[in-house]
Amino acid sequence: MSRTALIVGTGSGISASVARALAGEGYKLALAARRPEKLETLAHETGAKVFAADAVEPDQVTALFSQVDRDFGHIDVVLYNASFRTRGPFLDLNPPDVQRTLMVCAHGGFLVGQEAAKRMVARGSGTILFTGASASVKGYAQSAPFAMGKFALRGLAQSMARELGPKGVHVAHIVIDGSVRGTPSGREAADAVADNLLEPDAIAATYLNLIGQHRSAWSLEVELRPWVERF
Amino acid sequence: MSRTALIVGTGSGISASVARALAGEGYKLALAARRPEKLETLAHETGAKVFAADAVEPDQVTALFSQVDRDFGHIDVVLYNASFRTRGPFLDLNPPDVQRTLMVCAHGGFLVGQEAAKRMVARGSGTILFTGASASVKGYAQSAPFAMGKFALRGLAQSMARELGPKGVHVAHIVIDGSVRGTPSGREAADAVADNLLEPDAIAATYLNLIGQHRSAWSLEVELRPWVERF
Amino acid sequence: MSRTALIVGTGSGISASVARALAGEGYKLALAARRPEKLETLAHETGAKVFAADAVEPDQVTALFSQVDRDFGHIDVVLYNASFRTRGPFLDLNPPDVQRTLMVCAHGGFLVGQEAAKRMVARGSGTILFTGASASVKGYAQSAPFAMGKFALRGLAQSMARELGPKGVHVAHIVIDGSVRGTPSGREAADAVADNLLEPDAIAATYLNLIGQHRSAWSLEVELRPWVERF
Amino acid sequence: MSRTALIVGTGSGISASVARALAGEGYKLALAARRPEKLETLAHETGAKVFAADAVEPDQVTALFSQVDRDFGHIDVVLYNASFRTRGPFLDLNPPDVQRTLMVCAHGGFLVGQEAAKRMVARGSGTILFTGASASVKGYAQSAPFAMGKFALRGLAQSMARELGPKGVHVAHIVIDGSVRGTPSGREAADAVADNLLEPDAIAATYLNLIGQHRSAWSLEVELRPWVERF
Repeated sequence: MSRTALIVGTGSGISASVARALAGEGYKLALAARRPEKLETLAHETGAKVFAADAVEPDQVTALFSQVDRDFGHIDVVLYNASFRTRGPFLDLNPPDVQRTLMVCAHGGFLVGQEAAKRMVARGSGTILFTGASASVKGYAQSAPFAMGKFALRGLAQSMARELGPKGVHVAHIVIDGSVRGTPSGREAADAVADNLLEPDAIAATYLNLIGQHRSAWSLEVELRPWVERF
Repeated sequence: MSRTALIVGTGSGISASVARALAGEGYKLALAARRPEKLETLAHETGAKVFAADAVEPDQVTALFSQVDRDFGHIDVVLYNASFRTRGPFLDLNPPDVQRTLMVCAHGGFLVGQEAAKRMVARGSGTILFTGASASVKGYAQSAPFAMGKFALRGLAQSMARELGPKGVHVAHIVIDGSVRGTPSGREAADAVADNLLEPDAIAATYLNLIGQHRSAWSLEVELRPWVERF
Repeated sequence: MSRTALIVGTGSGISASVARALAGEGYKLALAARRPEKLETLAHETGAKVFAADAVEPDQVTALFSQVDRDFGHIDVVLYNASFRTRGPFLDLNPPDVQRTLMVCAHGGFLVGQEAAKRMVARGSGTILFTGASASVKGYAQSAPFAMGKFALRGLAQSMARELGPKGVHVAHIVIDGSVRGTPSGREAADAVADNLLEPDAIAATYLNLIGQHRSAWSLEVELRPWVERF
Repeated sequence: MSRTALIVGTGSGISASVARALAGEGYKLALAARRPEKLETLAHETGAKVFAADAVEPDQVTALFSQVDRDFGHIDVVLYNASFRTRGPFLDLNPPDVQRTLMVCAHGGFLVGQEAAKRMVARGSGTILFTGASASVKGYAQSAPFAMGKFALRGLAQSMARELGPKGVHVAHIVIDGSVRGTPSGREAADAVADNLLEPDAIAATYLNLIGQHRSAWSLEVELRPWVERF
């Protein structure tokens, strides 16, 4: 029986590299995004099925998992990679954008995590991964909403790990502590010499290692940063 | 000119004790709650004005601060104490309740914090306090939503402190690490010998100390727990 | 019966301000330092007895407490404030200096903490305070030894708090996250506008608050930094 | 040119599994212990050279590295795995044992880390690993000395990572959060169903992953615990 994985919030950076790495290990893949048309090339490359879903809409998340059930029969790995961010001077932040940041970063993680957990607890195995950020552990100036959303996601991951670990489900939270090559914040850091940004493929290697961990020695949290990063 | 304070999410525990302590120091008080009728006795006791407001509704938060502006002219201290919590087995959690937990614990904190900050940054002084919980720093099993909400509130407080401190506004986050006497979780812990629960008046003493800190030595975070607490 | 306090590692900054504040509240004071002759003025000002003791020498610590027993009969508050620091490029650090940093920052804290605890556990009350630093929670480049010593002291404080709290002894650790006016690192930061350094008297106010906390709501850890501090 | 590794504080648990895993990847190995005679079987199995060294003695650490220089010419990986622990009621702890705990857990880590760093900084590459414990991040009752030692080691690792990362040296700290099969604390937890203890080979897999990380995405800290562990 093939191993299967679902990535929610698939883009062109970390999630694409994880998709390629999983495909390389023989996983059958489902990739979900709000605008799945951008995933055509990646789907072609990895043999993935592509799904349209907004992770903050409970009905769409439920429907997504039902489709994956029908297509794959079971799910071994779920990665929640969706993110949204508003930033700027605290006094200028726009409440609806702040709310959306909380919804996408955290509530969507809950919705996806719960659907994943329902299936994995029933089978007594599976891996649920959450992509965090520097803002998961440190609230920066001019970036309160992202800190709110990413802190919340970390709290979710901790609670899930404590409850679901003894039921055989591995929950892990990866703190990406730096700018990723090819992303907007990566381009901002464009004084970039070679490999002073996080390489998505190098990040993906650690995601794959987490997925492969034996349950006698699971990690809940791992942080990743480039060698030159000040922290 | 009298010092003034606003407490949002006023109940019968910590916030009532803080209100009494502030009244005892001569503060003019505004107390807000979704159901302000329950605050009559406390208002009588402390001379406070009482306001109805749902902290997750931007319009109501804006209106609340406008009323306080009219009544008090300025605001020295704002305490965000509103909380909501759903808990239970992770697979059984109800998404709307999870969302409400995030909204009340965190988004309401943002809305109130932003209105408070607008006024305090303009004056170059003021104190904004957030009431946290054990769940602010540890995600417990069967309690993912509260961890999400309280982690998010902590992220908010950190970001605000980093940005607003240099503008003269003191932001502090108090981690209440245990059950408070007189609250539902306090009653659960009813095997309670004397003073093995957090006493609201003792908690309030630390809130007052934070408010009184000189800006050359501010605390962002303080945790409080009873002497007998296992942690 | 007078309340009594012992400060080990007394200098001219935080500890002197704490001494003055305690004297102001009527405490009988014992001040210990390796070179007590520098404490003459402070002793005169606070009515304190002065003792010579090297906190890393078990015999001297035991003798110090025996003298305090004889002079005061009992001890309510003990502050461990001794510190030593070597810094520089990691490859250039001198092992004996590194060892001394560990001994003064951490082992001396154990020796003093244990003697204090012996007396306080027997009475079921008392407060033991440890002065930490930014390095207590973050290991900086070019400063590994201080991080080692201050991390270790924080581990000591946590273990002591967990074990001794239920025996009535309050253990608290204060993270001084910035440069203190009048100290060498304070003078380095000499571009100092008014109150952008930690004022020792303002720090001492929080120490006194910790000492005064009711045991139903104790803090283990508090951090202090100036309003303008980047962190 | 063969890759080479040195393990200081080699025993029969984690370090033996790491040695076997490294040997399996073709590493030339040096194993050091205070009593190297116990390493005969492991050395035979892995082709390792065995050295006698007490990690808290600067001269012995220097001599050890000189021997490794002569035998291997260069060193790619150094693991500091030495540990010592005294525990019991805080009032009963014996100061010399507490000091030895600090020396072995932390000062030895510094001595070994500095010798390793001298060689790796010169080459602009290498990996230095430190084995931590639950006590690295939480100070338990009845175990203050181990918390002191392991907190200090974590501070060392953080400082080294911040300073040496930009010089091409990867420093990582692994928090072993549970009992390891085959060790004394593992045997205490002998109600052990299958795989509810940390398996040394599973732990070693994560050490190897850390060693293999690309420098664009390094981890400083990873924690490992068994799926059933309460934390």
